[in-house]
Amino acid sequence: MFDYKLLAALAAVVEQNGFERAAQLLGLSQSAVSQRIKLLEARVGQPVLVRAVPPRPTEVGRRLLNHVQQVRLLERDVQGQVPGLAEGGGAERLRISINADSLATWWADAVASFCAEHRLLLEHVVEDQDVGLKRMRVGEVAACVCATERPVAGARSVALGAMRYRAVASPAFIARHFPEGAGATELARAPAIVFGPDDSLQHRYLAGLGVEGSFNYHLCPSSEGFLRLTSSGLGWGMVPELQVRELLDDGRVRELVPGRPVDVPMYWHHWHNGGPLLGELTRQLCRVAERVLVPRTD
Amino acid sequence: MFDYKLLAALAAVVEQNGFERAAQLLGLSQSAVSQRIKLLEARVGQPVLVRAVPPRPTEVGRRLLNHVQQVRLLERDVQGQVPGLAEGGGAERLRISINADSLATWWADAVASFCAEHRLLLEHVVEDQDVGLKRMRVGEVAACVCATERPVAGARSVALGAMRYRAVASPAFIARHFPEGAGATELARAPAIVFGPDDSLQHRYLAGLGVEGSFNYHLCPSSEGFLRLTSSGLGWGMVPELQVRELLDDGRVRELVPGRPVDVPMYWHHWHNGGPLLGELTRQLCRVAERVLVPRTD
Repeated sequence: MFDYKLLAALAAVVEQNGFERAAQLLGLSQSAVSQRIKLLEARVGQPVLVRAVPPRPTEVGRRLLNHVQQVRLLERDVQGQVPGLAEGGGAERLRISINADSLATWWADAVASFCAEHRLLLEHVVEDQDVGLKRMRVGEVAACVCATERPVAGARSVALGAMRYRAVASPAFIARHFPEGAGATELARAPAIVFGPDDSLQHRYLAGLGVEGSFNYHLCPSSEGFLRLTSSGLGWGMVPELQVRELLDDGRVRELVPGRPVDVPMYWHHWHNGGPLLGELTRQLCRVAERVLVPRTD
Repeated sequence: MFDYKLLAALAAVVEQNGFERAAQLLGLSQSAVSQRIKLLEARVGQPVLVRAVPPRPTEVGRRLLNHVQQVRLLERDVQGQVPGLAEGGGAERLRISINADSLATWWADAVASFCAEHRLLLEHVVEDQDVGLKRMRVGEVAACVCATERPVAGARSVALGAMRYRAVASPAFIARHFPEGAGATELARAPAIVFGPDDSLQHRYLAGLGVEGSFNYHLCPSSEGFLRLTSSGLGWGMVPELQVRELLDDGRVRELVPGRPVDVPMYWHHWHNGGPLLGELTRQLCRVAERVLVPRTD
């Protein structure tokens, strides 16, 4: 088996943002912590930490950290049944890759009470779908929320439902660019807002309306910034209905073409061997998703 | 001088998300576009594009793109004075690095009408301050909004004012963790929410209240997600007043210790030789910032 004294030292340095605090937490001297990290690096044959302020894990360091987190989760499930084993009993950490729009909308309400009840700390990594799954494959995250159904080896995926997107813009933007309605010619000319190079929602929406070829767009890799730029009249964009409902209701933004949503399916991926806690979290997510997401259409 | 035919081909492939659309835009065959990219790569001695779908610029590719954008901005200023020179006259692009909280709050209203009036398309890169300035130094972005005053060589920085942060949590969280008030002991135990490894706001706030050493925290690198996790009761966190005012007013979140804000100064960095358009944008930002940010205290 791995030497968990060494791995715990790595986790402490990263989670405590430095050697000094890690030493405090572990009840060791700083040089003892430092020696454990060096020994770990000698064993894996490469650096596990970038010595910056604060120290950061290297790629292999992140894999080891995620492994530590998974082992702690499993230990925790055992502790529930064999309380005598527990020592200290701090909160556990779970690293999750998630798409920005889920994190900006339904996610918080789905996990808040669960985390409080189970003393679970979350580390969110915001990634588009393919990158998120890649992180899962190499063991950098223990779970992933994304739009891809197919699980990576060793994991399973659960369908949560779909996020519904609406193409919206400010009333002033619509009046300026689409005075006679948003036809294909006008849509190809008016500036859009695109989240990033992997965001094809605007392209899909335009293609559905017969607009092929290029169009002008701003780039904004922030869910909240995206919505603000849209409602300020900088461009039109596809925004989650969950995020824009209030602005639609009170008229601060309007749909370009009413009744043309785009639905994006959402899946929860998690390791098979994640133990009962991940299983419970999965059930909790399914319950909430059934309420807040729309049923899949496929 | 550089060969701008080659650079324009690079810009078209990246901005149009592919060789086919770039060829359409430039009125060339796909193989002609491809040849220009290869010739450019032969000259710079390394790849400028990652051949993925969509193609993405390499690091050196991004530097060249930013250079193209800066040249276009300068050309545009000349065109205003010498209209005969203009050909086509599409919208220009400006790459800006910005901290997530500015993008999620005051930025959109500050730039929306300016961009519409000047037909300017923005590419936002969300980065913490040091990384943002580093991108500026290597020429990947033309301007930067961040908390560091000192400009990089060739650029100047303008003080915009300060963003005010409030330490908030949901009433249920406060009742659970701080039934007798948020003292140092309770604060050290209650889970915080931290944006990322560079976010030291929560540490600063705790240090100001006499809490030293480690504390538990969730990680959430998303402004909107951060606010949602806070108001859902997952943890306490430092949130921009601009973003949380409404939630504070209607009682959905409360301050941990009333009247203890943390102010973070904001600076606008831009290239000296950015031309009149960047100058006008700078004046516009200063006008808006004076209204929405708080005066600096130093």
